Amino acid sequence: MAPDAPKVRLYVPDDLAAGGAVALAPGQAHYLRTVLRLGVGAEVALFNGRDGEWRARVERLAKGGAELATGERIRLQEDGPDLWLVFAPIKRARIDFVAEKATELGAAALWPVFTRRTAVARVNRDRLRANAVEAAEQCGRLSVPEIFEPVDLWAAMESWPTERALLLCDETGAGRPVARALAGADRAAPWAALVGPEGGFDASELDALRKLPFVTAVDLGPLTLRADTAALAVFACWQALAGT
Amino acid sequence: MAPDAPKVRLYVPDDLAAGGAVALAPGQAHYLRTVLRLGVGAEVALFNGRDGEWRARVERLAKGGAELATGERIRLQEDGPDLWLVFAPIKRARIDFVAEKATELGAAALWPVFTRRTAVARVNRDRLRANAVEAAEQCGRLSVPEIFEPVDLWAAMESWPTERALLLCDETGAGRPVARALAGADRAAPWAALVGPEGGFDASELDALRKLPFVTAVDLGPLTLRADTAALAVFACWQALAGT
Repeated sequence: MAPDAPKVRLYVPDDLAAGGAVALAPGQAHYLRTVLRLGVGAEVALFNGRDGEWRARVERLAKGGAELATGERIRLQEDGPDLWLVFAPIKRARIDFVAEKATELGAAALWPVFTRRTAVARVNRDRLRANAVEAAEQCGRLSVPEIFEPVDLWAAMESWPTERALLLCDETGAGRPVARALAGADRAAPWAALVGPEGGFDASELDALRKLPFVTAVDLGPLTLRADTAALAVFACWQALAGT
Repeated sequence: MAPDAPKVRLYVPDDLAAGGAVALAPGQAHYLRTVLRLGVGAEVALFNGRDGEWRARVERLAKGGAELATGERIRLQEDGPDLWLVFAPIKRARIDFVAEKATELGAAALWPVFTRRTAVARVNRDRLRANAVEAAEQCGRLSVPEIFEPVDLWAAMESWPTERALLLCDETGAGRPVARALAGADRAAPWAALVGPEGGFDASELDALRKLPFVTAVDLGPLTLRADTAALAVFACWQALAGT
């Protein structure tokens, strides 16, 4: 990051180029004006997941929106790991947390899947997306994880791209120790982690998952982790271990 | 865990032995009665951090308290890792989260320390403790992390037991990759991790910390993690790597 890069970072869907004009959505304009108390002339950084990060100046800032003028590029686009989090949705505060932490830890995509014991019937994709955008803005990422359409676990497994290794967080203790499963793992390859609901996978789900050729069941240690903790732990381990 | 062990687990300070009587605090009695809707005759499990886990039967349950009769022991006491989390306190929801997740991931103690950029002036130890107790009850631990008295960072470093290795979460990228720092680490030895405040350590703090003989600065990966995420990530890595 440039040493004098603006601290406020905003994700925008628009293309970014020198001398361009970018209109902000009303929510972002409100955030700049009312939460950060910025005004015309203030500098922010913009990224869109494709064009790197750009310095931009607030040209107009009103109740309904804002206009920024793009200056110089301060970071080139770079690819993060190709790491998906596939997870049984959990209740509200904890799913927000999963979206935030997975984004910080480098997730390329978040995929909610319904398992037998999943107690949550609907997933608010917009809310997941909003949490992911906010986390990406705050942690310095140049991209925002994609939020895939929630589907049944088996629909996800049937359409699974078999070259993508799937780390199954196995809370029964029968999995391989995660450090061993990830030793020498190729950081550039496609990866995913699968985390069950608060009540865990059901025994028949675990049996069937373990038989899939792209699945490796992993053990995260002797304690029983909550679903949200397991998601974060497996990502932290992947970041620490893959490619070492 | 015994297959038919009661699902509800409660931490109590009392000694536990077969045929004993245990009085619950009003808050716990309220929780059993109003949240879980249990009544006389219901079975719960009790632990105190010393005597293992015991089956107990509700004998009396009223507004102001409850009395339980202890039955058989269902788990022997076992020691977890001797792993402290030393952390700059952060704002309310996030510090609750740190207490919960560090407990799940096996912390033996939580020690809030004030650094230059710590924005939080007071720490509610009772609240930290309550979060740790609740997490221990839910994750199957047989102990609750100790909550040490909050002190200035340098007071903590001056009184530091030098045989305890301290992993400094260094957000500048200058630390050793955490997987390398923990390879072959002795799981039975005393360990600790130190995490700075939201604004990070100040450069002079980092310099001074790195010179301490018991400190190893570690790098948790290419992304900027929030303070709460860093705390969890380093504990997840320790659990995955130490002793392997």
